[in-house]
Amino acid sequence: MDSCLFCRIVSGELPATIVYEDDNSVAFLDHRPLFHGHTLLVPRKHVETLGELSPKIVGPYFEAAQLLSRAVESGMDAEGTFVAINNRVSQSVPHLHVHVVPRRKKDGLKGFFWPRTKYKGDEEMEDAKKKIITALKKIKAQE
Amino acid sequence: MDSCLFCRIVSGELPATIVYEDDNSVAFLDHRPLFHGHTLLVPRKHVETLGELSPKIVGPYFEAAQLLSRAVESGMDAEGTFVAINNRVSQSVPHLHVHVVPRRKKDGLKGFFWPRTKYKGDEEMEDAKKKIITALKKIKAQE
Repeated sequence: MDSCLFCRIVSGELPATIVYEDDNSVAFLDHRPLFHGHTLLVPRKHVETLGELSPKIVGPYFEAAQLLSRAVESGMDAEGTFVAINNRVSQSVPHLHVHVVPRRKKDGLKGFFWPRTKYKGDEEMEDAKKKIITALKKIKAQE
Repeated sequence: MDSCLFCRIVSGELPATIVYEDDNSVAFLDHRPLFHGHTLLVPRKHVETLGELSPKIVGPYFEAAQLLSRAVESGMDAEGTFVAINNRVSQSVPHLHVHVVPRRKKDGLKGFFWPRTKYKGDEEMEDAKKKIITALKKIKAQE
Protein backbone atom coordinates (compact mmCIF):
# COMPACT_ATOMS: atom_id res chain seq x y z
CA MET A 1 0.00 0.00 0.00
CA ASP A 2 2.40 2.67 -1.28
CA SER A 3 -0.07 5.48 -0.77
CA CYS A 4 -1.12 4.57 2.77
CA LEU A 5 -0.13 7.26 5.27
CA PHE A 6 0.61 4.78 8.07
CA CYS A 7 2.53 2.39 5.78
CA ARG A 8 4.73 5.36 4.86
CA ILE A 9 5.31 6.10 8.55
CA VAL A 10 6.12 2.43 9.21
CA SER A 11 8.62 2.37 6.32
CA GLY A 12 10.26 5.60 7.52
CA GLU A 13 9.28 7.50 4.39
CA LEU A 14 7.21 9.95 6.44
CA PRO A 15 8.35 11.36 9.79
CA ALA A 16 6.47 10.60 13.01
CA THR A 17 7.13 10.86 16.72
CA ILE A 18 7.67 7.17 17.37
CA VAL A 19 7.35 6.02 20.98
CA TYR A 20 7.43 2.23 20.55
CA GLU A 21 8.47 -0.39 17.99
CA ASP A 22 8.57 -4.17 17.87
CA ASP A 23 8.61 -6.85 15.16
CA ASN A 24 4.91 -6.50 14.41
CA SER A 25 3.93 -2.97 15.39
CA VAL A 26 4.92 0.70 15.52
CA ALA A 27 3.43 3.33 17.83
CA PHE A 28 3.64 7.08 17.38
CA LEU A 29 1.98 10.21 18.71
CA ASP A 30 -1.23 11.31 17.01
CA HIS A 31 -0.48 14.81 15.75
CA ARG A 32 -4.08 15.86 16.47
CA PRO A 33 -4.46 14.31 19.91
CA LEU A 34 -7.54 14.15 22.11
CA PHE A 35 -4.99 14.89 24.85
CA HIS A 36 -1.22 15.13 24.79
CA GLY A 37 0.31 11.66 24.75
CA HIS A 38 -2.51 10.24 22.56
CA THR A 39 -0.71 7.38 20.80
CA LEU A 40 -1.57 5.31 17.73
CA LEU A 41 -0.41 1.69 17.53
CA VAL A 42 -0.33 0.27 14.00
CA PRO A 43 0.62 -3.17 12.67
CA ARG A 44 3.59 -3.01 10.27
CA LYS A 45 1.71 -5.09 7.72
CA HIS A 46 -1.16 -3.22 6.11
CA VAL A 47 -4.67 -4.29 7.08
CA GLU A 48 -7.68 -2.02 7.23
CA THR A 49 -9.56 -3.36 10.24
CA LEU A 50 -9.25 -5.51 13.35
CA GLY A 51 -11.25 -8.24 11.60
CA GLU A 52 -8.54 -8.57 8.95
CA LEU A 53 -5.56 -8.75 11.30
CA SER A 54 -3.77 -12.10 11.07
CA PRO A 55 -4.76 -14.22 14.09
CA LYS A 56 -1.03 -14.86 14.61
CA ILE A 57 -0.49 -11.15 15.21
CA VAL A 58 -3.53 -10.50 17.43
CA GLY A 59 -1.71 -11.62 20.60
CA PRO A 60 1.53 -9.64 20.17
CA TYR A 61 -0.36 -6.62 18.81
CA PHE A 62 -2.56 -6.33 21.88
CA GLU A 63 0.30 -7.15 24.24
CA ALA A 64 1.89 -4.00 22.79
CA ALA A 65 -1.41 -2.13 23.26
CA GLN A 66 -1.51 -3.28 26.89
CA LEU A 67 2.06 -2.10 27.46
CA LEU A 68 1.27 1.27 25.85
CA SER A 69 -1.88 1.68 27.92
CA ARG A 70 0.21 1.33 31.07
CA ALA A 71 2.99 3.58 29.77
CA VAL A 72 0.72 6.33 28.42
CA GLU A 73 -1.17 6.40 31.72
CA SER A 74 1.88 6.54 33.98
CA GLY A 75 4.08 8.57 31.64
CA MET A 76 1.46 11.27 31.11
CA ASP A 77 0.55 11.20 34.81
CA ALA A 78 -3.05 10.32 33.90
CA GLU A 79 -5.76 8.55 35.89
CA GLY A 80 -6.76 6.04 33.22
CA THR A 81 -6.82 5.41 29.49
CA PHE A 82 -9.21 5.09 26.59
CA VAL A 83 -8.17 2.30 24.20
CA ALA A 84 -10.19 2.25 20.99
CA ILE A 85 -10.37 1.10 17.40
CA ASN A 86 -12.66 2.52 14.75
CA ASN A 87 -13.24 -0.11 12.10
CA ARG A 88 -14.28 1.51 8.80
CA VAL A 89 -16.81 3.97 10.24
CA SER A 90 -15.12 7.06 11.78
CA GLN A 91 -11.78 5.57 10.68
CA SER A 92 -9.80 8.44 9.16
CA VAL A 93 -6.81 6.37 7.93
CA PRO A 94 -7.72 2.96 6.47
CA HIS A 95 -4.83 1.16 8.21
CA LEU A 96 -5.75 -0.50 11.52
CA HIS A 97 -4.75 1.63 14.53
CA VAL A 98 -5.40 1.36 18.25
CA HIS A 99 -5.89 4.75 19.89
CA VAL A 100 -4.33 4.87 23.35
CA VAL A 101 -5.51 8.07 25.02
CA PRO A 102 -4.62 9.30 28.52
CA ARG A 103 -7.73 10.13 30.53
CA ARG A 104 -8.39 12.15 33.67
CA LYS A 105 -11.66 12.34 35.59
CA LYS A 106 -12.00 16.05 34.97
CA ASP A 107 -10.81 16.09 31.36
CA GLY A 108 -14.20 17.08 29.97
CA LEU A 109 -14.79 13.87 27.98
CA LYS A 110 -16.87 12.34 30.76
CA GLY A 111 -20.06 12.01 28.75
CA PHE A 112 -18.58 11.15 25.37
CA PHE A 113 -19.66 7.51 25.47
CA TRP A 114 -23.30 8.51 25.17
CA PRO A 115 -26.12 8.81 24.19
CA ARG A 116 -27.21 5.26 24.98
CA THR A 117 -30.42 3.77 23.69
CA LYS A 118 -32.61 0.93 24.97
CA TYR A 119 -34.10 -2.37 23.86
CA LYS A 120 -37.89 -2.32 23.74
CA GLY A 121 -38.30 -5.50 25.76
CA ASP A 122 -36.77 -8.95 25.61
CA GLU A 123 -37.76 -9.65 22.03
CA GLU A 124 -35.52 -6.99 20.52
CA MET A 125 -32.67 -8.20 22.69
CA GLU A 126 -33.21 -11.84 21.69
CA ASP A 127 -33.31 -10.75 18.07
CA ALA A 128 -29.89 -9.07 18.35
CA LYS A 129 -28.54 -12.12 20.18
CA LYS A 130 -29.71 -14.47 17.44
CA LYS A 131 -28.20 -12.31 14.70
CA ILE A 132 -24.79 -12.21 16.40
CA ILE A 133 -24.74 -15.92 17.22
CA THR A 134 -25.72 -16.80 13.65
CA ALA A 135 -22.91 -14.58 12.37
CA LEU A 136 -20.43 -16.20 14.76
CA LYS A 137 -21.39 -19.64 13.47
CA LYS A 138 -20.91 -18.52 9.87
CA ILE A 139 -17.47 -17.11 10.64
CA LYS A 140 -16.44 -20.28 12.49
CA ALA A 141 -17.70 -22.43 9.60
CA GLN A 142 -15.49 -20.46 7.17
CA GLU A 143 -12.31 -20.97 9.22
CA MET B 1 -15.11 -10.18 43.73
CA ASP B 2 -18.49 -11.33 45.04
CA SER B 3 -20.09 -7.93 44.61
CA CYS B 4 -18.85 -7.28 41.06
CA LEU B 5 -21.72 -7.06 38.59
CA PHE B 6 -19.78 -8.71 35.76
CA CYS B 7 -18.36 -11.45 38.00
CA ARG B 8 -21.94 -12.27 38.95
CA ILE B 9 -22.91 -12.47 35.27
CA VAL B 10 -19.88 -14.70 34.56
CA SER B 11 -20.83 -17.04 37.43
CA GLY B 12 -24.45 -17.21 36.26
CA GLU B 13 -25.75 -15.57 39.42
CA LEU B 14 -27.17 -12.66 37.40
CA PRO B 15 -28.93 -13.11 34.05
CA ALA B 16 -27.51 -11.65 30.85
CA THR B 17 -28.05 -12.09 27.13
CA ILE B 18 -24.91 -14.09 26.44
CA VAL B 19 -23.76 -14.23 22.82
CA TYR B 20 -20.32 -15.84 23.20
CA GLU B 21 -18.32 -17.88 25.71
CA ASP B 22 -14.92 -19.51 25.79
CA ASP B 23 -12.46 -20.67 28.47
CA ASN B 24 -11.28 -17.15 29.26
CA SER B 25 -14.12 -14.81 28.32
CA VAL B 26 -17.86 -14.22 28.23
CA ALA B 27 -19.68 -11.77 25.95
CA PHE B 28 -23.19 -10.44 26.45
CA LEU B 29 -25.38 -7.63 25.18
CA ASP B 30 -25.07 -4.26 26.92
CA HIS B 31 -28.56 -3.54 28.20
CA ARG B 32 -28.07 0.17 27.53
CA PRO B 33 -26.53 -0.04 24.07
CA LEU B 34 -25.14 2.71 21.89
CA PHE B 35 -26.89 0.72 19.15
CA HIS B 36 -28.63 -2.64 19.19
CA GLY B 37 -26.08 -5.44 19.18
CA HIS B 38 -23.63 -3.47 21.37
CA THR B 39 -21.72 -6.28 23.06
CA LEU B 40 -19.46 -6.38 26.13
CA LEU B 41 -16.63 -8.92 26.27
CA VAL B 42 -15.32 -9.61 29.78
CA PRO B 43 -12.56 -11.89 31.07
CA ARG B 44 -13.90 -14.56 33.44
CA LYS B 45 -11.21 -13.73 36.00
CA HIS B 46 -11.75 -10.36 37.63
CA VAL B 47 -9.34 -7.59 36.68
CA GLU B 48 -10.19 -3.91 36.59
CA THR B 49 -8.22 -2.69 33.57
CA LEU B 50 -6.41 -3.82 30.44
CA GLY B 51 -3.10 -3.12 32.16
CA GLU B 52 -3.89 -5.75 34.79
CA LEU B 53 -4.95 -8.53 32.42
CA SER B 54 -2.60 -11.52 32.60
CA PRO B 55 -0.29 -11.44 29.56
CA LYS B 56 -1.23 -15.11 29.00
CA ILE B 57 -4.84 -14.08 28.45
CA VAL B 58 -4.22 -11.03 26.25
CA GLY B 59 -3.96 -13.10 23.06
CA PRO B 60 -7.08 -15.27 23.49
CA TYR B 61 -9.06 -12.33 24.90
CA PHE B 62 -8.45 -10.16 21.84
CA GLU B 63 -8.89 -13.09 19.45
CA ALA B 64 -12.39 -13.27 20.92
CA ALA B 65 -12.77 -9.49 20.51
CA GLN B 66 -11.71 -9.82 16.86
CA LEU B 67 -14.24 -12.59 16.29
CA LEU B 68 -16.99 -10.53 17.93
CA SER B 69 -16.10 -7.46 15.90
CA ARG B 70 -16.66 -9.47 12.73
CA ALA B 71 -19.83 -11.12 14.03
CA VAL B 72 -21.41 -7.94 15.43
CA GLU B 73 -20.73 -6.15 12.15
CA SER B 74 -22.11 -8.84 9.88
CA GLY B 75 -24.83 -10.05 12.23
CA MET B 76 -26.25 -6.57 12.81
CA ASP B 77 -25.83 -5.73 9.12
CA ALA B 78 -23.56 -2.81 10.03
CA GLU B 79 -20.85 -1.02 8.04
CA GLY B 80 -18.14 -1.15 10.69
CA THR B 81 -17.51 -1.40 14.42
CA PHE B 82 -16.23 0.61 17.32
CA VAL B 83 -14.09 -1.50 19.66
CA ALA B 84 -13.19 0.29 22.88
CA ILE B 85 -12.04 -0.06 26.46
CA ASN B 86 -12.40 2.57 29.15
CA ASN B 87 -9.73 1.99 31.78
CA ARG B 88 -10.74 3.55 35.12
CA VAL B 89 -11.99 6.90 33.72
CA SER B 90 -15.50 6.63 32.20
CA GLN B 91 -15.50 2.96 33.27
CA SER B 92 -18.91 2.29 34.80
CA VAL B 93 -18.23 -1.28 35.97
CA PRO B 94 -14.72 -1.87 37.40
CA HIS B 95 -14.29 -5.22 35.61
CA LEU B 96 -12.42 -5.02 32.30
CA HIS B 97 -14.77 -5.02 29.30
CA VAL B 98 -14.30 -4.48 25.58
CA HIS B 99 -17.22 -2.65 24.00
CA VAL B 100 -17.99 -3.98 20.51
CA VAL B 101 -20.45 -1.58 18.89
CA PRO B 102 -21.95 -1.86 15.40
CA ARG B 103 -21.46 1.36 13.44
CA ARG B 104 -23.06 2.81 10.33
CA LYS B 105 -21.93 5.89 8.43
CA LYS B 106 -25.16 7.72 9.10
CA ASP B 107 -25.65 6.61 12.71
CA GLY B 108 -25.17 10.10 14.11
CA LEU B 109 -21.97 9.32 16.06
CA LYS B 110 -19.77 10.61 13.26
CA GLY B 111 -18.12 13.35 15.26
CA PHE B 112 -17.90 11.59 18.60
CA PHE B 113 -14.14 11.12 18.50
CA TRP B 114 -13.60 14.85 18.86
CA PRO B 115 -12.72 17.53 19.86
CA ARG B 116 -9.05 17.11 19.06
CA THR B 117 -6.37 19.43 20.34
CA LYS B 118 -2.88 20.29 19.05
CA TYR B 119 0.75 20.31 20.13
CA LYS B 120 2.22 23.79 20.29
CA GLY B 121 5.29 22.91 18.24
CA ASP B 122 7.82 20.09 18.33
CA GLU B 123 8.89 20.67 21.92
CA GLU B 124 5.56 19.68 23.44
CA MET B 125 5.49 16.60 21.23
CA GLU B 126 9.04 15.60 22.20
CA ASP B 127 8.11 16.10 25.84
CA ALA B 128 5.17 13.67 25.56
CA LYS B 129 7.41 11.21 23.67
CA LYS B 130 10.06 11.30 26.40
CA LYS B 131 7.49 10.76 29.14
CA ILE B 132 5.99 7.71 27.43
CA ILE B 133 9.36 6.16 26.55
CA THR B 134 10.58 6.66 30.13
CA ALA B 135 7.42 4.97 31.43
CA LEU B 136 7.88 2.07 28.98
CA LYS B 137 11.43 1.55 30.24
CA LYS B 138 10.25 1.53 33.85
CA ILE B 139 7.55 -1.06 33.08
CA LYS B 140 10.03 -3.25 31.18
CA ALA B 141 12.52 -3.00 34.06
CA GLN B 142 9.85 -4.25 36.49
CA GLU B 143 9.01 -7.34 34.41
